[in-house]
Formats: sequence, C-alpha cells, structure tokens
Amino acid sequence: MTELRKTVESYWSTAEARDWSAFASTLAEGVLYDLPQTRERIRGRDRYVQFNREYPGDWHIRIQRVVADGDQVVTWIHFTVGLEEMYAITFFTGDEEGRITTVTDFWPEEYEPPQGREHLVERY
Amino acid sequence: MTELRKTVESYWSTAEARDWSAFASTLAEGVLYDLPQTRERIRGRDRYVQFNREYPGDWHIRIQRVVADGDQVVTWIHFTVGLEEMYAITFFTGDEEGRITTVTDFWPEEYEPPQGREHLVERY
Repeated sequence: MTELRKTVESYWSTAEARDWSAFASTLAEGVLYDLPQTRERIRGRDRYVQFNREYPGDWHIRIQRVVADGDQVVTWIHFTVGLEEMYAITFFTGDEEGRITTVTDFWPEEYEPPQGREHLVERY
Repeated sequence: MTELRKTVESYWSTAEARDWSAFASTLAEGVLYDLPQTRERIRGRDRYVQFNREYPGDWHIRIQRVVADGDQVVTWIHFTVGLEEMYAITFFTGDEEGRITTVTDFWPEEYEPPQGREHLVERY
C-alpha cells in the first residue's frame, strides 16, 4: 500500500513541474474534484488533468503544511502568480493503492476584520 | 499523553455548549490564535476565551471532517448563525500534554467561478 501522504507530495511536485503524465498517475481514474466556494465539480482523471494543464498564469506552489491521517491528507499551500499571493487548503482522500480519489479545494481571500474586537486582537 | 485529536473534539463540543471553563482547559496558557485572511492575532488563553465568549450571534457548529496526525490536527466545520451558513478550516498544533498551542482559522467565502472552464466543470 502506497501512503497517501507520498502521493499528495508527488501531486504538488509534479503540478509545479508541469509533468502531467506523472501528475495523472497520482489520481484514481474516477477522481472527483470539488470547489465548495463556487460549487464547481470536475469528474474523472482526464478532465481534471486538463483543468490543471489549462490553468492560466505562471503559477508556483510551495507546501506550507501537510497533515496526514491514513487515507486522508490535508495540505496548506502558498500559491503565487507573478506578484499575486494566495493560499489554498486542500482535503484529499485516497484508495487502497494510495491514489487520490477526492480533492476538495478552498481558496480563502483577505477581508477586513469586523469591528468590536480591537481590545483583544493585534494585526500582523 | 493526551491525544490532540480528543482535545480538539472537546474544543468544539465545549464551544458549542458555551462551557467556557471546559473550553479553556483545552488550551495551553500561551495559545496563539491567527486569522491569516484579516492578519489578526490573539495571544494567550484568557483573551482567546473572551474572544470566543463574546463572539456575536446564536452560532452553532457541526464537525464535517477531522484529520489528525500526532501533534497536528485539522478540522473542517460547518458553522451556522440563523439562516447564514459558512464553513471554517482550522489548523491546530498541541503540546506534549495534548493542549492546544496554536489555532489558525480560515473562513472561505463563496465567489463566482472564473470564465473559460465551463467545458470541464459542472455546478452543484
């Protein structure tokens, strides 16, 4: 049994390298990709590889944190496109061969803090 | 050694119950709370308990997923205030007594999908 953690590390490194055949090999054929913030879903390895291959911009990925628990893994990545910086939180599940069966992505954006908690909070 | 996973489950259940002394007992005295989206930080157990106690609205929490890896835990929770529904992703780290030393919260919001990927994506 391949550890899902290793598969997920390979998922990110092969995406960063634009090595799409190696990227595809991390995915189960029926992989499901969900973006809860836009309620978008992509079904199947071929479409999902195409989605990543066509993703616009000269983007780069750096892993900030990996939390692995058997057939579940979460990553927190830092994502840059030119001067723009973002981060993404991704939940993965895997099959018994250590291939990725579901990918759920969150892309949190900056916002202004609500008023009324300045007595407890500092800004960084 | 207390498992951090159990501490984190207690963190959410005592918050939901508004049992602030039990909630405080899940936290290390020097706990650090970070909100990367607003760049807000709260230092220390007393302030952080107060922040939660004062948090406005009749909010309720339901755990969707827990991923635990030794002294690191991630949760994905469903959060409701009246008719408003949100979710939060929270990264925890712990000390050797299983108390929470850092809490990093992300609150992803809905957004409209970018154009150009309709040939790969369905909406749900």
